[in-house]
Amino acid sequence: MEYIDGGVTASKGFSASGVRVGLRSGQQKKDLALIYSENECNGAAVYTQNIVQAAPVTITKQHLSNGRLQAVICNSGNANACNADGEEKALATCQAVAKLLGIAAENVGVASTGTIGVPLNYSLIEGGLPGLVEGLSPQGNQAAMEAIMTTDTMEKQAAVRLELGGKVVTIGGISKGSGMIHPNMATMLAFITSDAAISSEMLRLAIKQAADKSFNRISVDGDTSTNDMALIMANGTAGNDMIERVDNDYIAFVSALTAVCTKLAKRMARDGEGATRMIECRVKNAPDEQAANALAKSVIASNLVKSALFGKDANWGRILCALGYAGVNFDPWKVDVCFESSNGRVDVCRDGCSLAFDEEAALQVLEPEEVTISVDLKQGDVEGVAWGCDLTYDYVRINGAYRT
Amino acid sequence: MEYIDGGVTASKGFSASGVRVGLRSGQQKKDLALIYSENECNGAAVYTQNIVQAAPVTITKQHLSNGRLQAVICNSGNANACNADGEEKALATCQAVAKLLGIAAENVGVASTGTIGVPLNYSLIEGGLPGLVEGLSPQGNQAAMEAIMTTDTMEKQAAVRLELGGKVVTIGGISKGSGMIHPNMATMLAFITSDAAISSEMLRLAIKQAADKSFNRISVDGDTSTNDMALIMANGTAGNDMIERVDNDYIAFVSALTAVCTKLAKRMARDGEGATRMIECRVKNAPDEQAANALAKSVIASNLVKSALFGKDANWGRILCALGYAGVNFDPWKVDVCFESSNGRVDVCRDGCSLAFDEEAALQVLEPEEVTISVDLKQGDVEGVAWGCDLTYDYVRINGAYRT
Repeated sequence: MEYIDGGVTASKGFSASGVRVGLRSGQQKKDLALIYSENECNGAAVYTQNIVQAAPVTITKQHLSNGRLQAVICNSGNANACNADGEEKALATCQAVAKLLGIAAENVGVASTGTIGVPLNYSLIEGGLPGLVEGLSPQGNQAAMEAIMTTDTMEKQAAVRLELGGKVVTIGGISKGSGMIHPNMATMLAFITSDAAISSEMLRLAIKQAADKSFNRISVDGDTSTNDMALIMANGTAGNDMIERVDNDYIAFVSALTAVCTKLAKRMARDGEGATRMIECRVKNAPDEQAANALAKSVIASNLVKSALFGKDANWGRILCALGYAGVNFDPWKVDVCFESSNGRVDVCRDGCSLAFDEEAALQVLEPEEVTISVDLKQGDVEGVAWGCDLTYDYVRINGAYRT
Repeated sequence: MEYIDGGVTASKGFSASGVRVGLRSGQQKKDLALIYSENECNGAAVYTQNIVQAAPVTITKQHLSNGRLQAVICNSGNANACNADGEEKALATCQAVAKLLGIAAENVGVASTGTIGVPLNYSLIEGGLPGLVEGLSPQGNQAAMEAIMTTDTMEKQAAVRLELGGKVVTIGGISKGSGMIHPNMATMLAFITSDAAISSEMLRLAIKQAADKSFNRISVDGDTSTNDMALIMANGTAGNDMIERVDNDYIAFVSALTAVCTKLAKRMARDGEGATRMIECRVKNAPDEQAANALAKSVIASNLVKSALFGKDANWGRILCALGYAGVNFDPWKVDVCFESSNGRVDVCRDGCSLAFDEEAALQVLEPEEVTISVDLKQGDVEGVAWGCDLTYDYVRINGAYRT
């Protein structure tokens, strides 16, 4: 498996497009994206687990119920959530774009991101559709990626190539997400394409397994959005033997898909609203995977830990504290903690107690853009991981004046 | 029942004291407090549910196992948590102060608050004890209250007087807490005294019931500390008939105790680190109490809601979103939301959808120091409440450079 360029259009047979229709006044960026396959695909998605679900989530679930899809359209600038006419407009969007593409409306997925509870200006979308469809291009990855961004400051794309039974298979994706990002599924938007031949049943399993190891391991602010989904379309043009069961080909495919999703997920954590650094927490030697992941997530999600890391403060007591309320039973008097980064490593806690350490060295270790908190539980042999970011003045600034 | 002055020394037979022993270099404030009853008391406490528990929590649990107490000592500036010799020093503190008071060490409770994982400088405490005991006074409430504060910027005290069977009974308390405050018990320090005659069994029930309706309904940053406790001592000098069962006297007592704890809790929410306003969330017409409280707490704990309220942004979509991931099943299409304060009321959401509202009027409603988010679920008849505060630049500043 090798990483390649091209994002969502790296896979054979896919084109993409992005235009500006003006859904957010004052914003000059693109706000409407389309991803299209020249032939019908198998499709699958995982969705937000929030009780309050945006209209496009509902419509996409309906359209994916038969496991088939050929295009997905996504707007930024408006979540189309908590609107009485939301589903009507989400459906109209699918129908209108399907007509222009000459495909069935049921083969179009739809997604939205932006402010909740503001009626969607559908006429702007309708007016932008001809240009959007006309702009479809195998080089359209960049435009589509820009169009789905909101408060994102960094591009998020990834693609890999692997061989399955002598055939070259590609998986590529783009994503958006920086605020309202938290576990329990998607909690962001990710669109992934592949030219692999894989049944929709196996695709559903693959996207769920990959999301559990990537998107569901990140947390920016503990809020789970109403709109999130990670969606995959596979059009089979790579010509590999159809993946129809959990075999070696499936394992290779899901491993490559997980790599794509993990790259997108870490990028989202790094681009957390206002963040200056990505924080990884690795919990080693835990009794089981669920415990290890819950502990890592609790550390990553703690406002006190996040604030301390913004201040480059090796305040490991807050890490012990966050482990302690994760809802996992463990012996705190066995726990070791260290910080690691490209600037080295500093051990700060052994057997639950303070270690003398050089404050100046710790400051150096906490300086880089990526910092790892390593927790050695010494009560098992399973490892868990979670990714997040620091909590900064800018997070408060961005979210204190987002809507107005 | 009437509110009175006097805090922890409002109850007959109690004295208090506070001195500075220098546990935090550079800090000029008092850092060691003592509360003492002239006769032995019945005592009870509720504690943090963090797996990582500070040494003083362990020692106080042991000393309260027989339900008797006569004094409680508390230091700020050092949590005495995650230290190998923590319990030894916490116990030594109890023994030393007991000796000076001429009481049994088992009748002394001990509490600490401050940085985790820094060895406690016991010699400073030992050296300060004679002055602390000498300073005990029925007017000592203010000194004790100051000594338990850390990043607190406001005093937290409350006292009430009620009649039980013709006898005047007093309940008074002080508390500290502004960061690391979250549900699941104490998550702060509160010391409460009463001159009521009440069995230690009933006192245990009373402090638990009162804490559930007050301290456990606040959230500042979602972190549950390693050190928290709410402790009550009742010395019986009011001369009322001993409360030994759940009868009318018990109900009157627990209701007054809840009033004291609620006043302390709301004060802690208002004094959340860096906060500019207290936020109350009331969830009305819910199917049951647990659901109502979980929903209210989810709103209060959302970083996105907290940031929006700092910006006086009536971003109700984030409220719907926070309700949606509270883990409670409900129909979002029935929910009404409004903001209320001393400046009036603005309705922003009806039946899960946006209402047109005057942005200028909303800004006015969100201006005062206390703002209520009212959620009408319209799917039951039970109400729940939670208290929190906004998320501000100062929270990040305070916690980005707390330890160093």
